[in-house]
Amino acid sequence: MGNQEHLSKEDRLASLSGAIESGSLFRLQRMLNALHPAEIAHLLESSPLEQRKIAWELIKRENEGLVLIELNDDVRSQLTEEMDTGDLIEALKDLDTDDMADFLQGLPDTVIQETLSAMGRQERERVEVVLGYDEDTAGGLMDTEVVTIRSDVTVEVVLRYLRMRGDLPSHTDRVIVVDSYDKYLGVVSLSKLLTSQPDDSILFIMDHEYSAIHADTDKNEVAALFEDRDLISAPVINEVGKLLGRITIDDVVDVIRDEAEHSIKSMAGLNEEDDLFAPILPSVKRRAVWLGTNLITAFMAAAVISQFTETIESAVALAVLMGIVPSMGGIAGSQTLTMVIRGIALGQIGKSNTHSLLRKELLLGLINGVIWAVVVFAISAIALKDIEIGILIGVAMLLNLLAAPLSGVLLPLTLRKMNIDPALAGSVLLTTVTDIVGYAGVLGLASLLLPYLRQIFA
Amino acid sequence: MGNQEHLSKEDRLASLSGAIESGSLFRLQRMLNALHPAEIAHLLESSPLEQRKIAWELIKRENEGLVLIELNDDVRSQLTEEMDTGDLIEALKDLDTDDMADFLQGLPDTVIQETLSAMGRQERERVEVVLGYDEDTAGGLMDTEVVTIRSDVTVEVVLRYLRMRGDLPSHTDRVIVVDSYDKYLGVVSLSKLLTSQPDDSILFIMDHEYSAIHADTDKNEVAALFEDRDLISAPVINEVGKLLGRITIDDVVDVIRDEAEHSIKSMAGLNEEDDLFAPILPSVKRRAVWLGTNLITAFMAAAVISQFTETIESAVALAVLMGIVPSMGGIAGSQTLTMVIRGIALGQIGKSNTHSLLRKELLLGLINGVIWAVVVFAISAIALKDIEIGILIGVAMLLNLLAAPLSGVLLPLTLRKMNIDPALAGSVLLTTVTDIVGYAGVLGLASLLLPYLRQIFA
Repeated sequence: MGNQEHLSKEDRLASLSGAIESGSLFRLQRMLNALHPAEIAHLLESSPLEQRKIAWELIKRENEGLVLIELNDDVRSQLTEEMDTGDLIEALKDLDTDDMADFLQGLPDTVIQETLSAMGRQERERVEVVLGYDEDTAGGLMDTEVVTIRSDVTVEVVLRYLRMRGDLPSHTDRVIVVDSYDKYLGVVSLSKLLTSQPDDSILFIMDHEYSAIHADTDKNEVAALFEDRDLISAPVINEVGKLLGRITIDDVVDVIRDEAEHSIKSMAGLNEEDDLFAPILPSVKRRAVWLGTNLITAFMAAAVISQFTETIESAVALAVLMGIVPSMGGIAGSQTLTMVIRGIALGQIGKSNTHSLLRKELLLGLINGVIWAVVVFAISAIALKDIEIGILIGVAMLLNLLAAPLSGVLLPLTLRKMNIDPALAGSVLLTTVTDIVGYAGVLGLASLLLPYLRQIFA
Repeated sequence: MGNQEHLSKEDRLASLSGAIESGSLFRLQRMLNALHPAEIAHLLESSPLEQRKIAWELIKRENEGLVLIELNDDVRSQLTEEMDTGDLIEALKDLDTDDMADFLQGLPDTVIQETLSAMGRQERERVEVVLGYDEDTAGGLMDTEVVTIRSDVTVEVVLRYLRMRGDLPSHTDRVIVVDSYDKYLGVVSLSKLLTSQPDDSILFIMDHEYSAIHADTDKNEVAALFEDRDLISAPVINEVGKLLGRITIDDVVDVIRDEAEHSIKSMAGLNEEDDLFAPILPSVKRRAVWLGTNLITAFMAAAVISQFTETIESAVALAVLMGIVPSMGGIAGSQTLTMVIRGIALGQIGKSNTHSLLRKELLLGLINGVIWAVVVFAISAIALKDIEIGILIGVAMLLNLLAAPLSGVLLPLTLRKMNIDPALAGSVLLTTVTDIVGYAGVLGLASLLLPYLRQIFA
């Protein structure tokens, strides 16, 4: 960076594996230790298991903690499992309280206790405050290292205090004003401090309206607040308004990233921490859950089809074409489902607009249903010269393209009410509906109507 | 926020639609104008069309520009279409240069020209610089309003200059040091300015190593840099090192959010700007593309099945169970595909680790293939009392669970090489492979082996 040449992620990956293969570990070590901790973490996550372990051994002691905190849970616990507690404590000691709390939460209880008792009193108390909150809340995200000032002093006094204090914690864009009981009063931005006159009073220049976040606020709500209001940091208070710490944008960016990854991975039945080079056995287990669930769905569809074996025997073209209906229903349904899952995640869907949404999606389904019903009818009638089957497939398609948006809207909303993550369970349930409606539609209609249709078009 | 009670997104939505239904527009207007622009934008995006238009009319003039810039492209152009150019220019005038450029890029050329000529010279030139860069690069993201200082002065002088200057641009966490030709030299953070002694020289306290970003850097690379290094702002320079502007974390958060939404939506064949309450016709068109593509895939699968009608007629149980094999292949393949698409998006996959990845995914496929082959065999043999069909389905399943990871890894990598977005085209192509291999596997094996198997197990 800066003026020196900077390698792309892909180049770094290539040079890591090249160095390991050719045994130039010294060169690799130099490259690794010139990178930022997050970049090292990224590289470790992108490396196959054996290379990852070799590279990890080469990382400087003082970087270990910073790298570990940037890794996803899986890779991190893989590496920490092989460290002894002393090394762990050493690696942890320079981390921010929020990072340390986050890290400790993933460790066995005995290690947490050992690590805590190895800390100084003040630091231990700080970490314990953060550990007291759920990691999915503002309290779990916050850092307790905060620069606070009083409101009854002048800018001059604050400037002198800051100079005396020296380095400010990273991402300090404003100092926090509290009273003598640590009750939160407001903030003064650093740029305000810099552009005010030395004899201005803090009471006069401070922002009394600046948002403080309650410690038990959900982390996704915190992220929305940071996004909507373009914040860099926000104070965290408890239920009586006492200042507990502050949340900074870097941790919020992680929340935003994690939320999106969670949606993407969950919708394919993957764990969001699933690691590109995870050890085989845990991966087999995780993916097998989804495959097993899908097998049940597939057998349910098969059970539906098995009710109609006579119909299929009488017109084997049904076996050829019947799969088209559930397939199209699955696609249409997953489009609606994806819209709704994102809408829920981003807080855009509530009771008041569910009705409008359902109406719109059903209308979309109706229009697309008619279009594609006509298309499959035309193809069956013209190319396959089978008008009757064309009619059956067309009608079943229309029905399924109405069932798809209906379940695409209602399933995730129902799951949310039941406190089940719609991204996780939604798509399997949706496919179950569109498969069953699809197969039952084609074959049911065929068993009822095919003899009559054959007579009409004979 | 702060001390006053704060409504959740869902409550706001409900009170918007309640106010419109009961005709209490004055109450609605008060509520809307108490919100931040991003919150208003969010509310508009979550509202059905007619409500959206009514709410838009109630928004204060001076907020219009800030709200418009927060809206997604679709909703924004819906609302601006009905504004005349004069109103547009009025709404735009207080925006940052990057926001203004972003906004203008979506408007017709005549409106861009009119808007530019209505601006003051200095502002017009600034916007034109940003407009000169692709909106997907650092140059297109940057804001040109920057606080710069020289290196040969003391902290004292800078402090006096800042006080004289008054308000700093938002997200100013550091001032930028340039020489008299505007060549970028380094930065000084506000906290450094505040904690240094007044007679310290800037040359002495400045950070010479701080990353400057080249204007033509891709925006996703910019985002990775901000994430990896926890930046709040970064200077943007041209190829000869001249300072052009700076990028701030708020715009980077939007890039991160957009990239994730793009992946999620593309994988379901949706446009990432697809709006919950988009007008019907454009939505029908967008979704129809995906449904049409899928129909081709489904007909290809049907064409495969149609080669084996005699086999199906001789054993209708095949028609009942054959769908299970492509279905499982589709799930397994989409798990691999999702991993690989995210790996590509996050820069974790390169030439050097493709091989290891493929080996790992194939091994996973082999293990899962064997497991599920045995399970379907057992179910078919025990529950359906059909050992022969069980063997066929089991073997076809194993084959398809090997084809799935193979295409899950190779398809997106090939698409990337061809500069096609793997998130967009990957899943349709993958399903085509797993459907065809699945059906051809079951039915092909059946047509070859079923007679012999029947003899053996007769």
